[in-house]
Amino acid sequence: MAKEVSNREENYSLWYNNLVTKADLAENSAVRGCMVIKPYGYAIWEKMQADLDRRFKETGHVNAYFPLFIPKSFMSKEAEHVEGFAKECAVVTHHRLMANPDGPGVVVDPDARLEEELIIRPTSETIIWNTYRDWIKSYRDLPILCNQWANVVRWEMRTRLFLRTAEFLWQEGHTAHAIREEAIEETHKIVEVYAAFAREVMAIPVLVGKKTESERFAGAVDTLCIEAMMQDGKALQAGTSHFLGQNFAKAFDVKFATKEGGLEYVWATSWGVSTRLMGALVMAHGDNHGLVLPPKLAPIQVVMIPIYKGEEELAKVSERMHYLKKELETQGVTVKVDDRDNLRSGFKFAEWELKGVPVRIAIGPRDMEQGTAEIARRDTLEKTTCPQSEIAHLIPNLLTNIQQNIYQKALSFRENNTHTINTYQEFKERIEEGGFFLCHWDGTPQTEEKIKNETKATIRLIPFDPNPVAGPCMVTGAPSPQRVIFARAY
Amino acid sequence: MAKEVSNREENYSLWYNNLVTKADLAENSAVRGCMVIKPYGYAIWEKMQADLDRRFKETGHVNAYFPLFIPKSFMSKEAEHVEGFAKECAVVTHHRLMANPDGPGVVVDPDARLEEELIIRPTSETIIWNTYRDWIKSYRDLPILCNQWANVVRWEMRTRLFLRTAEFLWQEGHTAHAIREEAIEETHKIVEVYAAFAREVMAIPVLVGKKTESERFAGAVDTLCIEAMMQDGKALQAGTSHFLGQNFAKAFDVKFATKEGGLEYVWATSWGVSTRLMGALVMAHGDNHGLVLPPKLAPIQVVMIPIYKGEEELAKVSERMHYLKKELETQGVTVKVDDRDNLRSGFKFAEWELKGVPVRIAIGPRDMEQGTAEIARRDTLEKTTCPQSEIAHLIPNLLTNIQQNIYQKALSFRENNTHTINTYQEFKERIEEGGFFLCHWDGTPQTEEKIKNETKATIRLIPFDPNPVAGPCMVTGAPSPQRVIFARAY
Repeated sequence: MAKEVSNREENYSLWYNNLVTKADLAENSAVRGCMVIKPYGYAIWEKMQADLDRRFKETGHVNAYFPLFIPKSFMSKEAEHVEGFAKECAVVTHHRLMANPDGPGVVVDPDARLEEELIIRPTSETIIWNTYRDWIKSYRDLPILCNQWANVVRWEMRTRLFLRTAEFLWQEGHTAHAIREEAIEETHKIVEVYAAFAREVMAIPVLVGKKTESERFAGAVDTLCIEAMMQDGKALQAGTSHFLGQNFAKAFDVKFATKEGGLEYVWATSWGVSTRLMGALVMAHGDNHGLVLPPKLAPIQVVMIPIYKGEEELAKVSERMHYLKKELETQGVTVKVDDRDNLRSGFKFAEWELKGVPVRIAIGPRDMEQGTAEIARRDTLEKTTCPQSEIAHLIPNLLTNIQQNIYQKALSFRENNTHTINTYQEFKERIEEGGFFLCHWDGTPQTEEKIKNETKATIRLIPFDPNPVAGPCMVTGAPSPQRVIFARAY
Repeated sequence: MAKEVSNREENYSLWYNNLVTKADLAENSAVRGCMVIKPYGYAIWEKMQADLDRRFKETGHVNAYFPLFIPKSFMSKEAEHVEGFAKECAVVTHHRLMANPDGPGVVVDPDARLEEELIIRPTSETIIWNTYRDWIKSYRDLPILCNQWANVVRWEMRTRLFLRTAEFLWQEGHTAHAIREEAIEETHKIVEVYAAFAREVMAIPVLVGKKTESERFAGAVDTLCIEAMMQDGKALQAGTSHFLGQNFAKAFDVKFATKEGGLEYVWATSWGVSTRLMGALVMAHGDNHGLVLPPKLAPIQVVMIPIYKGEEELAKVSERMHYLKKELETQGVTVKVDDRDNLRSGFKFAEWELKGVPVRIAIGPRDMEQGTAEIARRDTLEKTTCPQSEIAHLIPNLLTNIQQNIYQKALSFRENNTHTINTYQEFKERIEEGGFFLCHWDGTPQTEEKIKNETKATIRLIPFDPNPVAGPCMVTGAPSPQRVIFARAY
């Protein structure tokens, strides 16, 4: 019997954990809050990385690598930054173990205490801006457009695979500019790169906008973001792009000589997406059979399963499948022939459905006679029969079609679960259903806080609206320049 | 004036540091022993990674990711392993900072002490074999062929950029096998992957062989390695592949049900190369003008420098260069046109020589009249003139030629500095010159230790010699089955 997945409608949280662990994406490790990303999950992450990395390079960015450790004193140089991260810092205090003098095993060598404690980077603004001070002398050294792929650690108390882990993998871009407007433009450029990646590759529709002051990155002047809707109607922040103003340049004294001979502080941005995207992928598309992977991220796009009795039939079908596999590979399609002889085909069907493989091709003895194959698509679970001779021609189009259909389905879901609400009473009732709520808000942190405390909903973003329509705040009635998006969030 | 590089023959160590820092490969960070890998250096590392990763995947390996942290108690489960690494472990003891009650800044929150200290991985055998225990039940689960690209930390007292740093980047493969011989075969397969990569991509000739017991990895039954000769005659261990026997399976209780229904411990290998390869690349090929990059690893393969007076000439030459650049790019060649107008061409020549760009193309007003270009190759510093119309045709061949020439040069250097020595007296004299020494050794750790203490030379490897010739140990006269390689090493 294949691994059972619990019902999404009955217990969303358990369903999510089932998908992540049973589809072999990741599992909890022996270290509290840290995950092991298993080969199947890591293969998806590698595809995300490759696509994002290409987009960063096409927009003029280069990769570099900065240290894992940050001296403790650096953390407190930017006041809001330390306020935001101090409570989640893993701290290295010693650099040596020694044999336990009182028994077996090893203990920390008390003589190997560091002069200054080191923080494992929760994010790298501080160590990077301390480095940029030496890199930037004149306007000719600007802009600097660096990205790094790295692990970071934030000591979270309640963790969930991919969504919130003590260690996670991410990319963090850190750019330095001579001109304020150029830095602001950079943050917009990047949030649009993230949005295009989410839509085109992850098949996840996202809203783009600006965070409110209380939801900003610690140390930022402005935070832009992309927000996606999960199938329980909750929002997931999938990527952020921060305009840091001159905050870090001032904290680390990074100035440049202008063309005109002056000396000015440098303007900064930072931006990142993380393995959290893996969680978004699972929750945006999965169903009660398991993962539904968009073809552009599927490590295996087509799985072929032979239907047979006895070794002779298996050999025949398997040979045909390997021939078809080669044909498909010349079209750039990734194919796996599952000819394991110790498992029933029904078990294999369920296993590859669980793993979200976009297309399954089954060929049995009758198909061999008739030159046909059964094609099943994972997104709709529809099956059709087609001539084997047409497979190489049909499949690439089918994959494109599946990619688009998955996106459209997620988009329809979001549209059906986005509501324009005018009264706080109605808001309080309907927030329980989940979804995105377009409401007027008076722009004050007090009202935002009140709504959060009373409904657990936060302002996910202030949309970039070219034609904003003003109205009264749903709570206070005070004027609001445009509607903002409220939702409960991950 | 371009950046000065100190003379390799006068001060090899300073020359090395000059190349690494002035060619913008890496620099020391604010954190003791940790480096910043700068964009130009990281671009080379990315090319190494891409090529190695392709080779791993072609030989059936998959990538995964395991936690940065290792519980302290895991470290001591394999006795030799902890012995080898305990003195270099960075230890996390706390998970929170707090406002300093006695002044400005932050301090470690004493209430946030971890129950069990966490070690930053110096290598991941322990956390991975603890994980494999859950992954492996039956012979059907084997082999497991996992690799991870990760950062690791070994708290070294004396550090040098790329060669020995507290944090470094690497890949570590960890495989699990049902059969002893299959695991041994894996270690040989991988060391040959490393050797092929070093020769074909890095243009560095390497020797392949086995380490002596005293030079083995802590916890291994056997360590295979590749060793390269640097231009000062010293050896650099460039990659290792370990047969771990059942040591880690026993330490972490990892057993599998055999086909025959028995229960046996799993056989293991592990293997890695690191950013140390960047140091090898610098030291194997560099000269007194700077880096000499093999075309297969050069982020920029061809740099074009316009020679001009005034804006009008620059515009003309630049336009031509961008046309030639496009032509070359269709051939898969990476080209940069350096049309910065604030630097003299002599400065640019020196800068790109320092950065090791394989080919320089200069075009001036006379070249524009005659339709010619000056082609300079970095490896030999030779210049030739050729028609612009032939550039797209000539350059790919020239790059192949340079790749081969750099390898041949390094190979000749190694051959000219490898000596067969029969007496210890001669050995002690000639070891001062540097180089590799083929000598008979009686196979005892005592003799090995004596030689090391008296000459600072170690046995780099025992070659895989299909026709070993026996002889008397150069120190004790006791019988030796074959000559081994001695050298001083990095």
